[in-house]
Formats: sequence, C-alpha cells, structure tokens
Amino acid sequence: MFQFHLDHTDTSSSARCGRWETPHGVVETPAFMPVGTRGSVKGVWPHQLAETGAQMILANTYHLTLRPGEKVVQELGGLHEFMGWNGPILTDSGGFQVFSLGALRQLDDDRVVFKSHIDGSILDLTPARAMQIQEDLGADCIMCLDECPPHDAPVSKLEEAVARTTRWAQICRETHKRADQALFGIVQGGIHPQLRERSAEGLLKLDFPGYAVGGLSVGESPEEMYRTLDFTTPMLPKEKPRYLMGVGRPIDIIEGVLRGIDLFDCVMPTRNARNATAFTSHGTVKMRNLKYQTDREPLDSECDCSTCQQFSRGFLRHLFTVGEMLGPMLLSVHNLRFYQRVVTELRSAIKSNSAQEFRREHLARMRDGP
Amino acid sequence: MFQFHLDHTDTSSSARCGRWETPHGVVETPAFMPVGTRGSVKGVWPHQLAETGAQMILANTYHLTLRPGEKVVQELGGLHEFMGWNGPILTDSGGFQVFSLGALRQLDDDRVVFKSHIDGSILDLTPARAMQIQEDLGADCIMCLDECPPHDAPVSKLEEAVARTTRWAQICRETHKRADQALFGIVQGGIHPQLRERSAEGLLKLDFPGYAVGGLSVGESPEEMYRTLDFTTPMLPKEKPRYLMGVGRPIDIIEGVLRGIDLFDCVMPTRNARNATAFTSHGTVKMRNLKYQTDREPLDSECDCSTCQQFSRGFLRHLFTVGEMLGPMLLSVHNLRFYQRVVTELRSAIKSNSAQEFRREHLARMRDGP
Ligand SMILES: [Zn+2]
Ligand SMILES: [Zn+2]
Repeated sequence: MFQFHLDHTDTSSSARCGRWETPHGVVETPAFMPVGTRGSVKGVWPHQLAETGAQMILANTYHLTLRPGEKVVQELGGLHEFMGWNGPILTDSGGFQVFSLGALRQLDDDRVVFKSHIDGSILDLTPARAMQIQEDLGADCIMCLDECPPHDAPVSKLEEAVARTTRWAQICRETHKRADQALFGIVQGGIHPQLRERSAEGLLKLDFPGYAVGGLSVGESPEEMYRTLDFTTPMLPKEKPRYLMGVGRPIDIIEGVLRGIDLFDCVMPTRNARNATAFTSHGTVKMRNLKYQTDREPLDSECDCSTCQQFSRGFLRHLFTVGEMLGPMLLSVHNLRFYQRVVTELRSAIKSNSAQEFRREHLARMRDGP
Repeated sequence: MFQFHLDHTDTSSSARCGRWETPHGVVETPAFMPVGTRGSVKGVWPHQLAETGAQMILANTYHLTLRPGEKVVQELGGLHEFMGWNGPILTDSGGFQVFSLGALRQLDDDRVVFKSHIDGSILDLTPARAMQIQEDLGADCIMCLDECPPHDAPVSKLEEAVARTTRWAQICRETHKRADQALFGIVQGGIHPQLRERSAEGLLKLDFPGYAVGGLSVGESPEEMYRTLDFTTPMLPKEKPRYLMGVGRPIDIIEGVLRGIDLFDCVMPTRNARNATAFTSHGTVKMRNLKYQTDREPLDSECDCSTCQQFSRGFLRHLFTVGEMLGPMLLSVHNLRFYQRVVTELRSAIKSNSAQEFRREHLARMRDGP
C-alpha cells in the first residue's frame, strides 16, 4: 500500500527522485507539502491547492485535537473528507507544537502534559494517545510522538530526548494498527553526529516504512542544518522515503534535496503571503512597496500561476494597502506555486544529473535581485 | 451601445425581464450586482464571482478615490483590468458614503466637502469632480452625484436634497463625456410621493439612459420602502433600466422586482458570510451553531454552488470556530450564488407570469425555517 520507487539518483549529489504510492494517490518526490494547520491551507480552496501542483499536504495533530477534536473529524468522515482534499495527507504527532506552543506541565518517561494555548485545557499526550488521535484523524502518513528540544538545549537534554523519542517510537510502532497509514519514526539528536546516529540506530531496529528528520529548523544556522543532513541522511535506508520536518526556505529545500531528502513541509509560502511577501524567480519582494503602485506587470513574469495570469503588481499592492483579504488569497496561490515549481524543476534536474547546477542557477537568480 | 430590451412584463405584477447591452457584455435583468467596494468582492476571485452567475458588479467611487486614487486605477488600465473583471461594472457617485461615512465639513449648492474616514484627508466633491473620477475609473454605468439625507431628516431637508440632486444631475449630464459609459440620474425624495415626483420630473427632462432610486434602505421600514417603490417606479420610463440602490435582503429584491426594478446591489451576501450567516432555501442560519458540529450534510442541499458541492456544515462550522479565512471565502461563494439563484428564478417566473407566486413560495419556504 506504500510502495516507494526510487527512479533515479543524481550523479552529482545525493539527490534522488521517486514515486511514493499511498492510499490516496502517488506522490512524486522530492515533494513539498503545503501546511493546512487546522484543516485548511490558509486562504486557498483545496482545488486551487491542487492546481498549484501540490500532491500531498500536512495537517497538525495538536491544533486539530484541540479544535474540533479528532472524534469530530472522524464523525465528519476523516481528514480527507473533512477538509475536501482527496490526495495524500500527513499529520505530525503534535509533539513539536506541544513543546513550542503549550505551557509544559509535566514530561516524564510515559507522557507529556500540556496546557492548551487556546483555552487552557489539559492535553495529556502519550505515544499511544498520539497514535489514537492520528488514527482517528485518518491521514495517510503519520508520525511517532517525539521530543523536540530547542536548539540551545544542553547535550544531556538532547541525549534524554533521543532516548525518550526512541522509547516512544517503540510504543507507537506497537500501538499503531491502521494498515492504510504509514507510520514514520523521527530521528532526533540536534546537530551532533553521535546523537543522530544513536537515534537512527534505535529507530532502524523498528523498521518503519519511512523516516523523518526532526529537531532541525529550530534555531540552528542553515550551515548547521545542512551539515547535520550531510551525516544524518546516509544513516537512513535508501529504499524508504525521508522527510525533513518544517523546512523551509526554497534554498533549504534545494540543499535538503541535494542531501537525499524526499519530503518537505513549511508554512512559509502562505505565512509570507499574508505578510505581503512574495517569492519570485529573482528573490523575495514586499508587495506593499510604493514602487508597485502603478506597475501593470504580473508579479513574476516567469510564473504560470492563476494570480500572475490575471493580476498586476499594482492591484496586488492596492489589495494589501487597503487590507482586502483577496491580497493574501492571490499571493498564497502564487507562493505555493513557486514552491511547487522549485520541486518540479528539482525533479527534472535530478533526472538529468544536474541538481548541483540547479542549485547554482537558483542562487545566481536570487542574487540578481527582484 | 447601451440598448435595453424589455423581453416581457409579468401579467401578475409590474415585474419585467430584459437584456441590457453594455460595452462589456449583456446583463439579463432583473440582475443582482455583488459589491466590490475597493475593487474586490471580499473573499472571492473574479472567476469564482462569474461562476456564481454574477453578470455585473459594483465598485465604490468614494473608497477608490481615497485609495488607490482614480488616477492610479486609470494608469493600471481602468477598473476592469485593475480588478480582473471583464464584465460590466457600475460605480456609484461617492455621495452615499460621503453622507454616511465622512465627517461632513461643508455642503452648499456647488459641492460637498468631507474629511476622509481613513486618513482625515479632505475630499471636495462637486458634480463635475464626481464625473471626472468615474470617467477615470472607467465603469460601464456611472451615477450622478446626489444628496442622500437620512431617513429621519425633516421634510424641508428632503426638499433641499431633491433640489440639489436635480441641479447636480444637470451639471453631471453636461459634464460627462465618455460615450462608453451610461450615466444614471438618481431619484431622491424619501418616502414622500410629491417629493419623489418632483425629483423624477426634474431628472426625466435630462433624458438619462437609466434611472436609479436612491434614498431607500436608509432606515425606513420595509413596508415604507415597498410603498415608495409602488408610486416611484411608475414615474420612470418603461423602456429604460431602473436601479434600486443598496437593496437588500432577498425578500426586498423580490418585492423590488414585483414593482418594476431591474438592477440591485447589496453587500449583504458577503458581509453576512464574514459573520458566519448563511442564506439558505429555508432561511438564514448561523454557521457557528454547535448543532452543526458533526453535520456531514452540505449547507443547503438545494444549492449548486462550489461550497455546497464539496464541504459539510461541520467543516464550515469548524472554519468559523477557529477563525480560518476559508470560512468567509466558502460562505461568500454560497451566499452570492444564493442571491443569483433568486434573480435567475425571478427571471423564469416573470417569463411564465408567476412572479407573485414566486414571492409567495419564497415566503412560505422561509417560514419553514432552516
Ligand atoms: Zn504567480
Ligand atoms: Zn451553496
């Protein structure tokens, strides 16, 4: 049900392209997953999301278990029917939000207890509970409960997190029952090779159908992240999909692909869109800039998205200036399409063994400036 | 360029159906125009707006002259290109907002001077200036500058407004130059037959290509509005389009059509959508209601809109509960489609001489409750 076919590995890097079969369709990799935190990729209809080229999307367990609750999603037919997205969906475990958003109440070998950031209600998350919630939500790909410490945590804390994440992964593996869901283990260990190795070893014994790299994009520098990937992805089995959680900027995705990552997710395209920041072929631009006031050109002349086909920079600027919700809507479609073009072009580049060249060209274009 | 063809008048009422040719296409009447206040019908892409059945839309001169300014719109190719709507557009004169939103600074025979509700800048509106702004904006149908007093104004004030509106209409008629724009006169006079008659007489001498009924839906009761239409529309030439400004609820549109009105506009479908209020075949409903939490049915089983084809009431409720912008987006499409279904069904009813029956059925359905 979850065949992963590696089609080709780039001769100039560790970049690989493939196809991942899921119960809700095939995902061509490398793939970028837009984030539908609370069951909606903000400002975009599901069919528009598909038109940007998105194949698989992510939804957040933490937010959905708080509202509307996984039982409600289940009663409404599961996540796919609930949010009107018939393609593959991935849910995270809730762990990341729990450690970053919630007021932590208790963390021990068995559980992590939080106070909701919304209404103060208590969420008692055990590995088994994380499995139950994600089974009820019904995504195609789900995540083990992990502990994701901050970047500046002391090594002893990172070691503890690796140990806890491994122990919890085992419980998740034993608890998870749905055959139509692929359960991924999450490698932790910060930027330390030995900790990453210890984490990967523990998880590999459990033989997951795929592996996520967690604990990155949590405050470390891009170089630290790339170096960590340099030594982490080789620890993971070639024949299984690899997912770099919560990353990132277009260049981070390219660097991740070059190091053998297959799946990415990030809120950046839609969050930036709401802040009037556009990704373009020549760098990011601020749409509120006065210089666009009477600019009749499309936002990005190289872009084939619905927004660039129909609207001028001047109109986009106006929408943001007066605070019309159409502004974030139009820019979200454009930014999401930009990300999909990056991974589409990456897949082509890999097939022609030119992934490194693609990276160089991308950086050169960005240096041109918008 | 602005042929108005009356196809049929209902035998059971004054309701009529027709086709109005404009430089940007034909409008089947009776027609409902969604409101794109600042160049965007809130929460809806232009192509989605067309899919709801909207043929002609309205934009507000007052808002657009303040931001981005009519010269900017002109430089961006005019209102159609600016907002990505290639169908007919109507702009109001700015008078209504000036009297209701702005801090009035001065009103005399020649002009009305306001302080902007946005940045305190001064807007000095004369009839000639209202023409210049609307010519620059470039809508297909534009309005004379009128004075729209509040419902509770003393009769002397209403008389003054009629006199001023007539005088200004003459200046507008003489000033307006663009042959590809139809300039409408606006009948004022509150709910008083003699004042309405005086206003209509003055305007008819100027032989406008169409007439608007202004000064209604400003606080009077529905019955007062209907009674006013009873005696006002017969004063207007049969062979020209009649536009009831800023009206209203679905029942108000039906009552207006029965009294011979052809064109309507109102912010209600989109404003209500943002407030989680849905128009349905059986009355209005509040989508935040807990009873919809696990409701898998579409919002309105009789509706053919994109929202009702894809999403459940439970998902809509969730979106409003968590404050996702997709909620207002989905509900705006539905509410706009509801309004278009009302006028589409009215056109059919008129053709089969059953407009009165349509009104009765509508009221009976609403009484059923949702
Ligand atoms: Zn674009
Ligand atoms: Zn509908």
